[in-house]
Amino acid sequence: MSTLDLGVLISGRGSNLLSILHAIGAERLDARVRLVLSNRADAGGLVHAKARGVHTAVLSHRDYASREAYDEALVATLREAGVTWVVLAGFMRIVTPVFLNAFPGRVINIHPSLLPAFPGVHSQAQALQYGVKIAGCTVHFVDSGTDTGPIISQTAVSVLDDDTEETLSARILSAEHTLLPRVLQWIAQGRVTLVPADENRRARVVIHQEE
Amino acid sequence: MSTLDLGVLISGRGSNLLSILHAIGAERLDARVRLVLSNRADAGGLVHAKARGVHTAVLSHRDYASREAYDEALVATLREAGVTWVVLAGFMRIVTPVFLNAFPGRVINIHPSLLPAFPGVHSQAQALQYGVKIAGCTVHFVDSGTDTGPIISQTAVSVLDDDTEETLSARILSAEHTLLPRVLQWIAQGRVTLVPADENRRARVVIHQEE
Repeated sequence: MSTLDLGVLISGRGSNLLSILHAIGAERLDARVRLVLSNRADAGGLVHAKARGVHTAVLSHRDYASREAYDEALVATLREAGVTWVVLAGFMRIVTPVFLNAFPGRVINIHPSLLPAFPGVHSQAQALQYGVKIAGCTVHFVDSGTDTGPIISQTAVSVLDDDTEETLSARILSAEHTLLPRVLQWIAQGRVTLVPADENRRARVVIHQEE
Repeated sequence: MSTLDLGVLISGRGSNLLSILHAIGAERLDARVRLVLSNRADAGGLVHAKARGVHTAVLSHRDYASREAYDEALVATLREAGVTWVVLAGFMRIVTPVFLNAFPGRVINIHPSLLPAFPGVHSQAQALQYGVKIAGCTVHFVDSGTDTGPIISQTAVSVLDDDTEETLSARILSAEHTLLPRVLQWIAQGRVTLVPADENRRARVVIHQEE
């Protein structure tokens, strides 16, 4: 058991950031949010972080010549803040190997679908368009693909016949707010192991029972 | 409410056929199985059908020059038996438009994944290989694609860290045995409507409340 030193990257409202902060406040999650980092100065989540005394930083990708240069700046800022685990919580940028290699096996993402279905953007609209009856959310390790990394945990939610993108998104988001802090606590408890790929399977995640 | 006149197409053990026959016997499903049709003479499901006095037929695709000729023979055999709704229950053949046009909007399939994830064969192995934490099964209307038709209902099941293809398949199959008769009873009750595609969404299924 060790307290996680989290960096949370956001681009918007930061409701998953709030769920992390609530879980820490309620002592359901043994972690500190060392830094909230946004690529947008107007991300609503920055307001929530500041109101709770959490350090924030804004680095606009527009100020950097390349994705790699931007990621180097992100890494430097996160390291300076003492971050050892990174959560992408609605961060609308693809991170490069520069970023992933700086935090090997320590970058996770939350995505509003039952991956591998509906990767990328507008997952909830994709799910409605397809007509699935079960949707959900996924927390996974980040790799160099788009929402392709090893899955840590998933939650299924029902799709209702009268759902709109807004109502379905809200139901999925509610499940995300439970799932993400729970997965982070499993990580804090040392219960999450990434099993390397072998000839039969790609890399996958095993969750150990609580001691 | 009307009694469904079912044709059930199988290629193997026919455990989903058995779940239909059990549901009919228990009066949970208002249907008659008019015919069990297999493309293989050694399909285990034929034994179960005969033991229960259900008519069976075997039509080998090898006896026909084309997929279309084979499907015409299937259609003739099913019609002769009085079949109006067709269930593909582990039938390992792709049906052509010849077949689908003969039973428009009345051919359903059960598939061992949460479609659109893991279509085609070996879905359970695909799911394990990918490392999903939630798998499941889907009942859908059949269209001319492979497992692409409008979804009627789905059931999610957990994937366990020590699952093998066999244990995961068994857990999904158990969910199929509940899902398929339930969907068929919804159809018998007239509660399943296929809503045509419009500019925003492809064709999709709505389930009406019980009266």
